[in-house]
Amino acid sequence: MSERIPVAVIAATGSVGQRFVQLLDGHPWFEVVALTGSERRLGQTYGQTCRWVLDEPMPVWARDMPIVPSTPEAANAPLVFSALPSKYATEIEARFARAGVVVCTNAGAYRRDPTVPILLPEVNPDHLDLLPAQRTEHGWPGLIVTNPNCTSAGMTIALKALDQAFGVRRVLAVSMQALSGAGYPGVASLDILDNVIPYIGGEEEKVEWEPRKMLGTVREGRLELAEVRLSVHANRVAVRDGHTVCLSVECEQETGPEQAAAVLAAYQPPAAARGLPSTPDPVILLHPGEDRPQPRLDRLTGGGMTTVVGRLRRDPLFHLKMVVLSHNTIRGAAGGSIYNAELLQKQGWLIPH
Amino acid sequence: MSERIPVAVIAATGSVGQRFVQLLDGHPWFEVVALTGSERRLGQTYGQTCRWVLDEPMPVWARDMPIVPSTPEAANAPLVFSALPSKYATEIEARFARAGVVVCTNAGAYRRDPTVPILLPEVNPDHLDLLPAQRTEHGWPGLIVTNPNCTSAGMTIALKALDQAFGVRRVLAVSMQALSGAGYPGVASLDILDNVIPYIGGEEEKVEWEPRKMLGTVREGRLELAEVRLSVHANRVAVRDGHTVCLSVECEQETGPEQAAAVLAAYQPPAAARGLPSTPDPVILLHPGEDRPQPRLDRLTGGGMTTVVGRLRRDPLFHLKMVVLSHNTIRGAAGGSIYNAELLQKQGWLIPH
Amino acid sequence: MSERIPVAVIAATGSVGQRFVQLLDGHPWFEVVALTGSERRLGQTYGQTCRWVLDEPMPVWARDMPIVPSTPEAANAPLVFSALPSKYATEIEARFARAGVVVCTNAGAYRRDPTVPILLPEVNPDHLDLLPAQRTEHGWPGLIVTNPNCTSAGMTIALKALDQAFGVRRVLAVSMQALSGAGYPGVASLDILDNVIPYIGGEEEKVEWEPRKMLGTVREGRLELAEVRLSVHANRVAVRDGHTVCLSVECEQETGPEQAAAVLAAYQPPAAARGLPSTPDPVILLHPGEDRPQPRLDRLTGGGMTTVVGRLRRDPLFHLKMVVLSHNTIRGAAGGSIYNAELLQKQGWLIPH
Amino acid sequence: MSERIPVAVIAATGSVGQRFVQLLDGHPWFEVVALTGSERRLGQTYGQTCRWVLDEPMPVWARDMPIVPSTPEAANAPLVFSALPSKYATEIEARFARAGVVVCTNAGAYRRDPTVPILLPEVNPDHLDLLPAQRTEHGWPGLIVTNPNCTSAGMTIALKALDQAFGVRRVLAVSMQALSGAGYPGVASLDILDNVIPYIGGEEEKVEWEPRKMLGTVREGRLELAEVRLSVHANRVAVRDGHTVCLSVECEQETGPEQAAAVLAAYQPPAAARGLPSTPDPVILLHPGEDRPQPRLDRLTGGGMTTVVGRLRRDPLFHLKMVVLSHNTIRGAAGGSIYNAELLQKQGWLIPH
Repeated sequence: MSERIPVAVIAATGSVGQRFVQLLDGHPWFEVVALTGSERRLGQTYGQTCRWVLDEPMPVWARDMPIVPSTPEAANAPLVFSALPSKYATEIEARFARAGVVVCTNAGAYRRDPTVPILLPEVNPDHLDLLPAQRTEHGWPGLIVTNPNCTSAGMTIALKALDQAFGVRRVLAVSMQALSGAGYPGVASLDILDNVIPYIGGEEEKVEWEPRKMLGTVREGRLELAEVRLSVHANRVAVRDGHTVCLSVECEQETGPEQAAAVLAAYQPPAAARGLPSTPDPVILLHPGEDRPQPRLDRLTGGGMTTVVGRLRRDPLFHLKMVVLSHNTIRGAAGGSIYNAELLQKQGWLIPH
Repeated sequence: MSERIPVAVIAATGSVGQRFVQLLDGHPWFEVVALTGSERRLGQTYGQTCRWVLDEPMPVWARDMPIVPSTPEAANAPLVFSALPSKYATEIEARFARAGVVVCTNAGAYRRDPTVPILLPEVNPDHLDLLPAQRTEHGWPGLIVTNPNCTSAGMTIALKALDQAFGVRRVLAVSMQALSGAGYPGVASLDILDNVIPYIGGEEEKVEWEPRKMLGTVREGRLELAEVRLSVHANRVAVRDGHTVCLSVECEQETGPEQAAAVLAAYQPPAAARGLPSTPDPVILLHPGEDRPQPRLDRLTGGGMTTVVGRLRRDPLFHLKMVVLSHNTIRGAAGGSIYNAELLQKQGWLIPH
Repeated sequence: MSERIPVAVIAATGSVGQRFVQLLDGHPWFEVVALTGSERRLGQTYGQTCRWVLDEPMPVWARDMPIVPSTPEAANAPLVFSALPSKYATEIEARFARAGVVVCTNAGAYRRDPTVPILLPEVNPDHLDLLPAQRTEHGWPGLIVTNPNCTSAGMTIALKALDQAFGVRRVLAVSMQALSGAGYPGVASLDILDNVIPYIGGEEEKVEWEPRKMLGTVREGRLELAEVRLSVHANRVAVRDGHTVCLSVECEQETGPEQAAAVLAAYQPPAAARGLPSTPDPVILLHPGEDRPQPRLDRLTGGGMTTVVGRLRRDPLFHLKMVVLSHNTIRGAAGGSIYNAELLQKQGWLIPH
Repeated sequence: MSERIPVAVIAATGSVGQRFVQLLDGHPWFEVVALTGSERRLGQTYGQTCRWVLDEPMPVWARDMPIVPSTPEAANAPLVFSALPSKYATEIEARFARAGVVVCTNAGAYRRDPTVPILLPEVNPDHLDLLPAQRTEHGWPGLIVTNPNCTSAGMTIALKALDQAFGVRRVLAVSMQALSGAGYPGVASLDILDNVIPYIGGEEEKVEWEPRKMLGTVREGRLELAEVRLSVHANRVAVRDGHTVCLSVECEQETGPEQAAAVLAAYQPPAAARGLPSTPDPVILLHPGEDRPQPRLDRLTGGGMTTVVGRLRRDPLFHLKMVVLSHNTIRGAAGGSIYNAELLQKQGWLIPH
């Protein structure tokens, strides 16, 4: 590949938008040519209008890029990454797809659409087989591919490894989610200092459903949801980045911690997902520490793309108990979308440029 | 009662010891006559040696009390409250019981003893029927009564109400526990700032077993454990006080959120536990807020003695999902022990003085 | 006083408004008869519309009170406590004063008005001598009395004691201010977790000027600013309540830590300010701990009305170094306004009812 | 340089020791050949015994290195980096120097020794002229060079730039220091959650003196302290890394914010300190943000080696007010020591190997 593919980041100023900008800095395949934002930011540069909240400084090339409108014409790229809020995503992302653009989105707007994959390359790259139906159904020359909700991402990767080996029947998941998952300004400091908020609007419904789609089967271009049933409790805690999920898992086949550990440690993604720039190394890290994973110490494993599993032990009710950690704005958002785009490119779904 | 009963606080300088001192300030039935501490503190006053960590100031009467040894002779009271670490409790508490003293303890040392009740007056005041066997078995003229582990306390109160109405069969509990549960100095700030620690040594084993004892039945002076099975995940979070527990509950009888709400809201403790100075009012508060209970806002409900339940909803796997909050150093420790002592006094178990 | 004076809380739903409601609960002289709020809250009860953020539960009487408009007619009380944002206070508070109402306000709108006292009863009760000029100047049958900015409050009380004894010439003050000072939602959690924000808009200008007014002299109904010069650095830290201020103080007269300690410990407010329901006991607590005052442990001293001073030591550049702590929403806001109203009542400035 | 110089990290398991290991990973000039630790750790590997607290994972090469005793024989390297606590440093570091080893230390033990430089290459590389006197005085074939206390580091760099231009006469400094400055376990979480601790033992004395030594003059091999006088208030806040210092500065020559900004932004270190692997780029960043620097956002500027200055404005008492931020375990500790070693190597002070 002698030239990098031009890409745009849609809604680039928010916390997920910033992660896109950061992770695309120096990307070997993609080159950011446009950053879009809301009307009140037009006419300003990214450096002027963006309240950068990440630890590492804003990439130098981004500072002087002008904010352009969130339209296909202004973005002017065959591939866009969308960090739009869901309420705007429905309309704006369709407009891009209609204009022939490939949209890799973090928004939830199209996740329930049966022709739009919720894609985790480590889990279900074959769900790209839904795309012909998407084109037929919607009549878009472009495409929309979503990544899952940030909490669903890591736990579905762990569940995939177990499902493949033992069949996963029932899952009880309790999340302790990071503040960055709520965007910026998001959670008020007075609400979370010395506190836990045992509620995140809409989250439990998403996490009880999305893994069923991702673990489902595409047959003849149609998706069948997986049979697994999930119960989710979602909590917000005073952590900046990294969602921690306690899982109790019941399998079809009898299993125990030793067998499950072997399966998790040996997990390899489907061949299509290997060797891409964002392929996590390892995909799953089985952490040996008795008190791990912890968000502060483990969230950046594999550059924030690795799913870290620990405390694997027998569950007195189901088969297995464990803790799963995943970086919510990297693996669970921007990094996941970029990984999806890499898979699309490798599989030949990107419009030639 | 014209005179108050003299009591001592054993190991009065730690964080639970401080709560005893605070909660006994102005108690209508009990008067603190001695504060004990470890050898290195002897010869100092409580005010000199105690690193007071509670929000409200140390009671004035406690400041000038000398620290005395943790012996029946030095304590010189018919009733003592023990905040001993478990490793010292086995021996020291037995010494008090042998000396004829009634010991209400927060330590875990005797919780597994079949003749020692783990007592929650709201739940199992009839477990005092184990005490004759305790005297027979151990040959103590005194007594030992324990309160449960701080995480077990609140959730067992909620489970009792449900068990009585529907029979509780299986419980999955995920705790988010406060820092004060680890004592002082306890958790290092570098370990918990911007972090969650998904492990607390020994905690899961306790919380999977203690509710079975408390929900069990005493027949002819012998305890039968309840059949309920529990699976617990214990986590430490950056909260000062108040343990939050997410519960998924499967019942013997079919039930749903409306029925369960009625049962929880109407719950009355057994008659013996009512009307005591520490009886919570209400015993259970069913909080209507969609994002409640929260430790910072709800832990002091009923002076920290009320169990707050919220987010009662249908569980896709079991019957019910809910969140239970309980103040870990009040209801779950010192306040619970004092309530136990009140019950003992009302039931005539305190040696006349 | 056989009957309590009816009062209203203006802008009762914010964090300072909530403190007014909490502190007026059971007040011996004042009875809340109205709670006002913005237009979108009208028609709801206080319990329905107010996101209560304080640790202790909302007083029962407040829950069912309807929110009424912020007008003299709707408030219908001779005395109101205002928690209005400054931008609305200018107009709304004047409307109340024109209607004959006494306004005790936490807003900054009128602090620079030479006829409006910034009142701390412990410091300058004689500044009520400005009120005749206020009536003349503005033609209001009512009155406006302000309390200082929350950071100015505690440090001015400490400075008053020193000024009286030694004359205070120059003060360098560096604040570490609590989150509640920014209101609700205020500071975003992503901005303050694991962070300090060394800037609070407009704060330094206020704290460099307000103490000069409060320490100034009223002669023949006119105010002369004190000569003291201040330099202030304002910082926001991850503390819920309680502003901590590091002070370096240069005096007119040579002095040292021992003399200053004696003066601070012995400080008595002017006679007019003594014996009121909110008079702090003590006015100043000189804390002996080497690492005190600390906001978490000391902010509730004297019910949050006491100014706590500690670490009094020699300053290598000036005369004295010390740390001053004051509860920003009690002494520095709602509690201060209520204390002001008590002084007004005692001095006969409240309209007979 | 075809071969890297073998180095050892003394007391490698603590939080500063870990930073040494992290920062020496891939260092172009130095190669870690030994990690030392206390007796109880001997016989274990670094990976086994070290509770790694940094965000990025432990370098792979360090995991299997055995912990060896803190002796010159076991360390077996011509250059060592010491992260010893001061109470052990006096004796152990002297033992290394007597054995001919060059010791770059973070410990405070020798900072008051008039022949031991407190070295900041950006500030006083000429203080290496003290080293001949050190050898004469102590009779060591090796050397000891210290870096300053973590709070002194950043502020002295900023003060140097101002001193050179305007002469600095008086400085009032108030620090808000990070938790990692207290080591591990260090500050208890119950002490700092929702709190500020306005006291750090011994800190104020160090920060009032060390800058005078670093800004002093070496003439004929003897050090003269600078005339500047400092007053310091030290506070601990809930920040993981990065010390924030509010400075008020009085200069010999009249100056103002514009002139000072020009001087700070243009500051170049002495020639000897330029172009080394750890030379900060830039040495000083003058941040334009109105609310900057902030530890969470700015501490990693220049890889944690840059001193970030912001909020430069006129001081009503002195000449200038500003905020200085410096990474306490990088620029203020391990990174500073490594930079010192680079300077020693470049200046020819390292024993040929």
